[in-house]
Amino acid sequence: MREVAVVAAGMTRFGELWQSSLRDLWVDAALETLANARADHVDAIFVGNMSAGQFVGQEHLGPLLADQLGMRGTAAVRVESACASGGAALRAAFAEVASGLSDLVLASGVEKMTDSTDVTEVLASAADQELEVYHGVTFPGLYAMIARAHMHQYGTTEEDLAWVAVKNHRHGAKNPRAQFRREVTLDDVMGSSLVAEPLRLLHCSPVSDGAAAVLLCPLADAKRYTDRPVKIIGSGLATSAMALSDRANIADLDAVERSAQRAYKMSGVVPARMQVVELHDCFTIAEICCVEALGLVQRGQGGAAARSGCTALGGRFPVNTSGGLKAKGHPVGATGIAQVIEIFEQLRGEAGERQVEGAGIGMAQNMGGSGASSVVHIFARA
Amino acid sequence: MREVAVVAAGMTRFGELWQSSLRDLWVDAALETLANARADHVDAIFVGNMSAGQFVGQEHLGPLLADQLGMRGTAAVRVESACASGGAALRAAFAEVASGLSDLVLASGVEKMTDSTDVTEVLASAADQELEVYHGVTFPGLYAMIARAHMHQYGTTEEDLAWVAVKNHRHGAKNPRAQFRREVTLDDVMGSSLVAEPLRLLHCSPVSDGAAAVLLCPLADAKRYTDRPVKIIGSGLATSAMALSDRANIADLDAVERSAQRAYKMSGVVPARMQVVELHDCFTIAEICCVEALGLVQRGQGGAAARSGCTALGGRFPVNTSGGLKAKGHPVGATGIAQVIEIFEQLRGEAGERQVEGAGIGMAQNMGGSGASSVVHIFARA
Repeated sequence: MREVAVVAAGMTRFGELWQSSLRDLWVDAALETLANARADHVDAIFVGNMSAGQFVGQEHLGPLLADQLGMRGTAAVRVESACASGGAALRAAFAEVASGLSDLVLASGVEKMTDSTDVTEVLASAADQELEVYHGVTFPGLYAMIARAHMHQYGTTEEDLAWVAVKNHRHGAKNPRAQFRREVTLDDVMGSSLVAEPLRLLHCSPVSDGAAAVLLCPLADAKRYTDRPVKIIGSGLATSAMALSDRANIADLDAVERSAQRAYKMSGVVPARMQVVELHDCFTIAEICCVEALGLVQRGQGGAAARSGCTALGGRFPVNTSGGLKAKGHPVGATGIAQVIEIFEQLRGEAGERQVEGAGIGMAQNMGGSGASSVVHIFARA
Repeated sequence: MREVAVVAAGMTRFGELWQSSLRDLWVDAALETLANARADHVDAIFVGNMSAGQFVGQEHLGPLLADQLGMRGTAAVRVESACASGGAALRAAFAEVASGLSDLVLASGVEKMTDSTDVTEVLASAADQELEVYHGVTFPGLYAMIARAHMHQYGTTEEDLAWVAVKNHRHGAKNPRAQFRREVTLDDVMGSSLVAEPLRLLHCSPVSDGAAAVLLCPLADAKRYTDRPVKIIGSGLATSAMALSDRANIADLDAVERSAQRAYKMSGVVPARMQVVELHDCFTIAEICCVEALGLVQRGQGGAAARSGCTALGGRFPVNTSGGLKAKGHPVGATGIAQVIEIFEQLRGEAGERQVEGAGIGMAQNMGGSGASSVVHIFARA
């Protein structure tokens, strides 16, 4: 297998970007990425996108976006795994380069959500239509059940959940591309309106528009495009039961654990060596479950990790230095790539106010639905 | 790059399968495939699917289907390139095995179309929403324009178009899994009702339900699963302008030509050596354009190829011995994999009444939209 490097990145600001269409957003991110590498072509394009068919009536994003980019003819395809579509697109791009099928590959993600009037309903199509959605549940409700289970089993409190939001907003305030560049207090979170008990408005990631892209090539060619390449040293993809009702313990995100184990095994790196981590905090409870499933803290200690500062900038395991989905925003198909960009910039020492000093190894974890799919990538300074 | 083999296949009958849901169809095809290889696990699953989100309100097919198959936990992801989703899923699975990321991989496709009341509208989301669909055109209209252009430039006649349908129905009558197992006459086609002039009902592939799967592994391991493996010797993916109005010549399917050139180059095989070909006849005109773009006949000779018997069973280049999309049916996400199954069975000498004697090299070409994306794979007996 050829070693693969990330050599450039580009992304739009995340937010309610009313003036930009899906194609505008994606082209902006792709052009920025190519400019950063001074590349004028790619061999293949992977587009992570959850649901442009339902959101904006447009499937077949591969050729559409290659064409819009001025790269008509280029191999281009969409990869979908709900909110893990970006991570899944990165993995497909990684395989394309690692196999030798292509040399220069754009891994990207995009979602235009604000044009739709039924965002919650469209998102619900990432859950099990027959066992869950038909009965009326949507994602805030599913994650509320996960939160209740975690509270019941481990004594996690509403305040623990709130600390995740406080931390990620604090990080997001330092990120010029974040949707919410403002801090929130514990009182703000605890006093925000209930969405699905115990989850309140400030426990939920927002509806967002945005796009992100990274450029991959064989490590051996990386110096053509940058003097600071970042290696992909591990890749893991796993699934779980689609419906919460089919899982042994809904507070344990077993797909996350399994995908992480695969990535750790491939990389030969253990959790304790992670210096910066982006993970999938679509709701605050998701971050708590994920820090546990990734093996950064013990089962049941995810709440304490947020409360104690362990996962804050300056802590033992800085998590979601970008602001996470919570504050940076969550244009679902773009999220997995935006996470990679944060790790890429951290490992290159380019994260500005959010920089984790000396970060040499990092991880990005992206998940779909209520954790039915998860993708983990581990990165190292080359 | 590791050499990759197809070692087993399975598919449902194609048709209006009212009793089966999307998940039922896919599981049937996957179980048949695994049983044929006596395999009880896979390392990864790729699902080709165009639009389950719009057709049946279900995205996130990777974990859903892995779970339904009893393989909860397995890496599983969806790949989409409109009607070329199956071919694109095969290519992603090929890269996964060729790279060494996984050893045993299921490449599959599925579409459940008959549950939707807006099939034509959903399919139209594979065209350019802003430049085409917004103005009212759907695929019969787009292919009618391609047909008119071909007639104008090359003298192709309505009768030439009709011969494609006659031939493919003749082939389909010999295929137990075909949606239409009956022959049609030239008069039947020429007298069928107009859909979009010059295309009549019998120029159009039907709305179908169905699923198909093949199992891939490194060639070095193939004998564990079958004594007659088939090698993948070439893979090409390409795109074109999304909107017909942006193409230099709408009668030339340049993405098809480009994808074929890439696959020919990788395989080292020239078109003249093809012994059996499955190609994307979503409308009869598409077959005429594709036999030209694949280099099987000269530009402008696609109509003559059907009329003369060149592309019939027993002819120089047997095309769509399965019945093609026209007669076998076209559950869009499954089509690209079903094409591969026909070639797989032909190269193993298992095609029964449709057998091309001594076939050792074959090709499958799968395309999306009005030809904005195309995937070509070339296969050889191992």
